[in-house]
Amino acid sequence: MKAEILQLLREQEGYVSGQDICRRLSVSRTAVWKCIRQLKEEGYRIEAVQNRGYLLVQSPDRVTAEEVSSLLKTEWAGHPVIFLEKTDSTNNEAKRLAEAGAGHGTLVIAEEQEAGKGRRGRGWSSPAGTGIWMTLLLKPDFSPSRASMLTLVAAMAVERGIRAATGLETGIKWPNDVVTGGKKVCGILTEMSAEPDLINHVVIGIGINANTEEFPEEIGSRAASLYLETGKRVKRGAVVARVLEAFEAYYRIFLETTDLSALRAEYETRLLNKNETVCVLEPGREWKGTALGIDSLGRLLVKPADPSAGGVKTVESGEVSVRGVYGYV
Amino acid sequence: MKAEILQLLREQEGYVSGQDICRRLSVSRTAVWKCIRQLKEEGYRIEAVQNRGYLLVQSPDRVTAEEVSSLLKTEWAGHPVIFLEKTDSTNNEAKRLAEAGAGHGTLVIAEEQEAGKGRRGRGWSSPAGTGIWMTLLLKPDFSPSRASMLTLVAAMAVERGIRAATGLETGIKWPNDVVTGGKKVCGILTEMSAEPDLINHVVIGIGINANTEEFPEEIGSRAASLYLETGKRVKRGAVVARVLEAFEAYYRIFLETTDLSALRAEYETRLLNKNETVCVLEPGREWKGTALGIDSLGRLLVKPADPSAGGVKTVESGEVSVRGVYGYV
Repeated sequence: MKAEILQLLREQEGYVSGQDICRRLSVSRTAVWKCIRQLKEEGYRIEAVQNRGYLLVQSPDRVTAEEVSSLLKTEWAGHPVIFLEKTDSTNNEAKRLAEAGAGHGTLVIAEEQEAGKGRRGRGWSSPAGTGIWMTLLLKPDFSPSRASMLTLVAAMAVERGIRAATGLETGIKWPNDVVTGGKKVCGILTEMSAEPDLINHVVIGIGINANTEEFPEEIGSRAASLYLETGKRVKRGAVVARVLEAFEAYYRIFLETTDLSALRAEYETRLLNKNETVCVLEPGREWKGTALGIDSLGRLLVKPADPSAGGVKTVESGEVSVRGVYGYV
Repeated sequence: MKAEILQLLREQEGYVSGQDICRRLSVSRTAVWKCIRQLKEEGYRIEAVQNRGYLLVQSPDRVTAEEVSSLLKTEWAGHPVIFLEKTDSTNNEAKRLAEAGAGHGTLVIAEEQEAGKGRRGRGWSSPAGTGIWMTLLLKPDFSPSRASMLTLVAAMAVERGIRAATGLETGIKWPNDVVTGGKKVCGILTEMSAEPDLINHVVIGIGINANTEEFPEEIGSRAASLYLETGKRVKRGAVVARVLEAFEAYYRIFLETTDLSALRAEYETRLLNKNETVCVLEPGREWKGTALGIDSLGRLLVKPADPSAGGVKTVESGEVSVRGVYGYV
């Protein structure tokens, strides 16, 4: 109920009377009063004025289930929100919940990951309180062969969500890094559990450096945070909400054809590699070319620089590594 | 060490002296004596004769780690064997072990599954003591798109393993049911955990009705057991060993091309659907044709009965259901 009260306080202009809250949520005055007290204890500044009611003056930068849910305007993404102060990795937690029966749209979010995961078994630094460490659980009805495209859908959602919440100019480095000012601000780790012809579940782990003030030296030249780029602290809950709303919108379009044909044009407007030289690292050989965009399956289209190498090639993630020739992006 | 002693007793003709065992395994007489006593307690009949040594007279029908390991002639498949008297499902247990770091080749085997799983969320009846309920964990280095073929490799291994251990005439119903006398004797449930371009792990669950004496009425017309078909009880450990040995051999061939091109001919000699009429159930339409075999990716090749429907079609598991027109097989 805390989430509903928060949402009422947010949506209402000016004061909301206790009576009004009771009537709208069909609960007692005592129940409302208890929730308000709890919210204050959690760091919400709520003014209570006799004969006028309650006013939300300030919210803490928290990613609790109440905070996220009260900001969220989605049909299924983020329903429910499972908040944990600490977990090994939100992907692992989401997988465990999926095996135990959690449904499509469940969001797992933690203040801290003790064993945050990057792609290919790498780690992902996830200190408490500064970042957005979350995993969206999906139980799609399409073929496992289609699932890898979801990672591009997620990149689009993060890119749009961050832009909507902060105004920051961001872009995508193929296939799924979200980049601002030449540095990576978000990593995405998509994992799937499947039978040969059926998806059990997909977990999409999203790690956004939000209010990080400083990075370890070894990654500082490649990592950005929303705070360091904008100079302002963000309310992480709002970023989460905007990302999930964007995901839901893009996912709906994705489902129409179960591929990226309808999203491709928009993806390409955010694609930082587009018309840039990329270096394709295949096992045993390396070649340069110009990235033209993606095809409807999310593969990168690259025109080889060497005219004798023939026409445009489709490059699959995993078979190759793509680097811009001028540094990281 | 029990496994090593069992193996020595099995491989030796006639009696094996205690001294010989000590020397070969570099252990003390007391240690050997303790192991022999434990093995006897577990149901092994071992004769001990002064000045001659030990003779294994009879083994119990168990699938313990010692029993399976002592029978196994493989390089990696079944190393180690993790035995459990009871678990929810060996696939689930193998997945948990994989997440915790268990390696390629680990075998999980249980006397009883409390929540045995079939394909597509169906259950799999797994009573204690009569069946072979096991899962082989793989951590392959190839693309996730190749993994679904492993289920056909597993079917080949089970079919050959059962034949080697029992002499029973068996065959495969595409893609992966092992059938004898027109009834299903084994089900295979392959599950994968993957990133878009990288396999975390594959678990291949194999359920073989071994010494089952009776089936529930509702599945009796479709289910067979090795005991009911041969009239003889099998030593389950021996069946497990033969299946794993066959899997290792077929897997090696599979890895050469990471597809079924080199296994296809052998698969087709065991394919019961071959040259038979099959009914292909696509969403919204149904058609009949003759199954000709499989292609190098494991898809069924079907020549439509309707001449106007064009040439041979490739049928993917999951997109369709294939039924023989004359009953179950």
